[in-house]
Amino acid sequence: MRAIHIVTTRLSSSFRPILLLDLVSSCSPPRQFSIPRRLICAAANGGGRSGSIVAPLVTEEDFHKKIDVNPPKGTRDFPPEDMRLRNWLFNHFKEVSRLYGYEEVDYPVLETEALFIRKAGEEIRDQLYCFEDRGNRRVALRPELTPSLARLVIQKGKSVSLPLKWFAIGQCWRYERMTRGRRREHYQWNMDIIGVPQVTAEAELISSIVTFFKRIGITASDVGFKVSSRKVLQELLKKYGVPEDLFGRVCIIIDKIEKIPIDEIKKELGFTGISEDAIEQLLQVLSVKSLDDLEDIIGGAGEAIADLKQLFSLAEKFGYSEWIQFDASVVRGLAYYTGIVFEGFDRKGKLRAICGGGRYDRLLSTYGGDDFPACGFGFGDAVIVELLKEKDLLPELGQEVENIVCALDKDLQGAAATVATALRDKGQTVDLVLESKPMKWVFKRAARVNARRLVLVGKTEWEDGSVSVKVLSSGEQFQVKLSDLE
Amino acid sequence: MRAIHIVTTRLSSSFRPILLLDLVSSCSPPRQFSIPRRLICAAANGGGRSGSIVAPLVTEEDFHKKIDVNPPKGTRDFPPEDMRLRNWLFNHFKEVSRLYGYEEVDYPVLETEALFIRKAGEEIRDQLYCFEDRGNRRVALRPELTPSLARLVIQKGKSVSLPLKWFAIGQCWRYERMTRGRRREHYQWNMDIIGVPQVTAEAELISSIVTFFKRIGITASDVGFKVSSRKVLQELLKKYGVPEDLFGRVCIIIDKIEKIPIDEIKKELGFTGISEDAIEQLLQVLSVKSLDDLEDIIGGAGEAIADLKQLFSLAEKFGYSEWIQFDASVVRGLAYYTGIVFEGFDRKGKLRAICGGGRYDRLLSTYGGDDFPACGFGFGDAVIVELLKEKDLLPELGQEVENIVCALDKDLQGAAATVATALRDKGQTVDLVLESKPMKWVFKRAARVNARRLVLVGKTEWEDGSVSVKVLSSGEQFQVKLSDLE
Repeated sequence: MRAIHIVTTRLSSSFRPILLLDLVSSCSPPRQFSIPRRLICAAANGGGRSGSIVAPLVTEEDFHKKIDVNPPKGTRDFPPEDMRLRNWLFNHFKEVSRLYGYEEVDYPVLETEALFIRKAGEEIRDQLYCFEDRGNRRVALRPELTPSLARLVIQKGKSVSLPLKWFAIGQCWRYERMTRGRRREHYQWNMDIIGVPQVTAEAELISSIVTFFKRIGITASDVGFKVSSRKVLQELLKKYGVPEDLFGRVCIIIDKIEKIPIDEIKKELGFTGISEDAIEQLLQVLSVKSLDDLEDIIGGAGEAIADLKQLFSLAEKFGYSEWIQFDASVVRGLAYYTGIVFEGFDRKGKLRAICGGGRYDRLLSTYGGDDFPACGFGFGDAVIVELLKEKDLLPELGQEVENIVCALDKDLQGAAATVATALRDKGQTVDLVLESKPMKWVFKRAARVNARRLVLVGKTEWEDGSVSVKVLSSGEQFQVKLSDLE
Repeated sequence: MRAIHIVTTRLSSSFRPILLLDLVSSCSPPRQFSIPRRLICAAANGGGRSGSIVAPLVTEEDFHKKIDVNPPKGTRDFPPEDMRLRNWLFNHFKEVSRLYGYEEVDYPVLETEALFIRKAGEEIRDQLYCFEDRGNRRVALRPELTPSLARLVIQKGKSVSLPLKWFAIGQCWRYERMTRGRRREHYQWNMDIIGVPQVTAEAELISSIVTFFKRIGITASDVGFKVSSRKVLQELLKKYGVPEDLFGRVCIIIDKIEKIPIDEIKKELGFTGISEDAIEQLLQVLSVKSLDDLEDIIGGAGEAIADLKQLFSLAEKFGYSEWIQFDASVVRGLAYYTGIVFEGFDRKGKLRAICGGGRYDRLLSTYGGDDFPACGFGFGDAVIVELLKEKDLLPELGQEVENIVCALDKDLQGAAATVATALRDKGQTVDLVLESKPMKWVFKRAARVNARRLVLVGKTEWEDGSVSVKVLSSGEQFQVKLSDLE
């Protein structure tokens, strides 16, 4: 009998209350939600359905009442300052993926609910952002990207050449009833390799994350990776005659080991029918922090030890030995992992997992497809920003505009448009002043957008086909023919 | 009394059935959806609510049944080949926005339903992808981006320096019961200027779209812009004593002029209480295609003529005169426009509007905020791809990898990892072969990823710290020390 694989969110532990927005700008306090109830339409067919909308009765007075200006609970706006940080982060995700030769993919943010519901589903089941659509279909805002990847791989079938090396950056959702500032969405960077059974795949995935950390200034003294293999547990369970189909459930329980009291863990494991002996041995093995000690306990013949040894050997060749350590307690909260599992952690121990991943060789068959060897990781946008903030490594990102172009006279606004067009045709970024404004205002604007040059269009110069250019860093000013302006 | 503004989707007419995916790759036919019904959980509290999920009963047999491998109806996956096209398109959107000095923003894809429901709401009301969340709140997947922009601008209040020049690229949703291959999502590029009352703003927005067209190879003989002003209608309605609060509704009806028979239009206009005389005059004016003729009819004293004249004068200065033409029939389907409106169209007349926009000076007050002068446009990802396909302008985009690195011997896979790391540290993209494969396979792979060089790690060379490099375009091969490899 085969192991059962359950889908829960790959990075549930980094789905955190901290807002990217909180960290870089202050958030206005929630205001009274004042849209009158009758403006919000209730459908007639079965209270609460998302049926067709009935034309609301709105009075002129209602109409101009202030709406709640905040984004829905648990979601974020990205005003320019936050968007710059998001782009900075995502560009590093993309650039690293590109360096490793991975191709970008994406899937719908809305999927069939069934894609995410599995036998031993954990947090995911309670926290799925699911609903019935207007056609009475059960759908969900995706909690993670891997099930969609599996669906697409099955769909593509034999038309793809393996291995696939894919990456994606997508928004993921969860729903919690008890929300106290907890986020309902985050973005997750995923990299996955489909079709490679060897540990070289996991080794490369960890290497790519290390490359990412280095690029943003994070070192091996800031973070590390705890690595283990689900095969350790599998071999132990086998030894005690525990049925293989309990494997996923046992992993889910063990993943909670640092979150709930040990007696609870024992009780939950007991419910699965595992003997007390086996539970004791299991918990003892989970505390092991060295591969040699593990080998002493479970023997060196199994795949678990061989895989882990190979991974540590490859880590050396990839050049990130100092970043990784064996830790038998790492099992990850996702039920679908079958081999190596790993998570990135901050060495100060203040934050939850920064990222996590592993091998999931039997996920595709849970969807009715043919299995392919596969592994991947998820890396959220929340914990990493917390860490960067703590280490004072958040970049200062201002708007960057090369030129601010301004007419000195209302009649010259057309001329200023001509100048702006000429510069843009040459690839120069231009903030064109669209109104007649005093010079004081223009200088303030130039400073705000970090303009490098101020290009002034004045009557006398323009009659000559020229403009005044002021280099804002030096104050240097000169006159130049439009055709010579670079 | 002020005019009433109603929110409908800015680019409703370009929300089209054509799939980006359809155009570049073939789509597999829908397969039987075989997830058993009992796996899909129904909540106990009020049929159809998206309440908490009840643990499903799944048998081992059910579990491995094949799921529907297609994305939900009306949505798209983006496998690598489609994602490359999407990135190509979005990068042009971003690059143009950057050239014009606009800052990127984003908002939640999920908003309060109330944000999108307005008095004279049109298509948007029937087609809103709305539902009740698990906390019994009415929410909707956004049909357009402008209401969120308005919400954010009100939230920011006095903390922002005007003008704001913002752009966004976001996924927008609609729900239709009768779907025959019609898409339920598309991406929309928006550029908006908040705080500029002059027509210079609209003129710059059109200029940015022209710049975009030019970059992707579209010329003024392929597409044009029809331009008018809502003030034309406003002045006419005033003349006939039609109450200002009917303005939005009248515009919505008139926007359908090319879609439904003229008698229907007359009937619908009649329902609003407008006199037959006024309707006749209105329809006559709508057929006017020259600014001079318009001036003959409505006189030259009003703002409508002045704004339009200024726009045409600025178009000349920006250098896109040949792209634009006056057309009184353009009113756009969005009720919130108050001044200049425009839409991009293909000159062959085969496609729906490519993009559309206009001035919406009174949108913010419909949400209870203080009004600011504002204008913007929406540009979808569907019609433009149809057009590019028709003009044979779709780019050929393959994967691009600089190096493929491969060990000639299983024992050298670690060495290959070292070589890959060295190259990546130098900024080179590397597809590392993670398995032991025959050379024939490696060359095939190299061709598929368009690798420039093949780097082979062989025993003899590696003992000397060297690798073999084969330039794939020329077949030239040489040996090089790893430290000298650039």
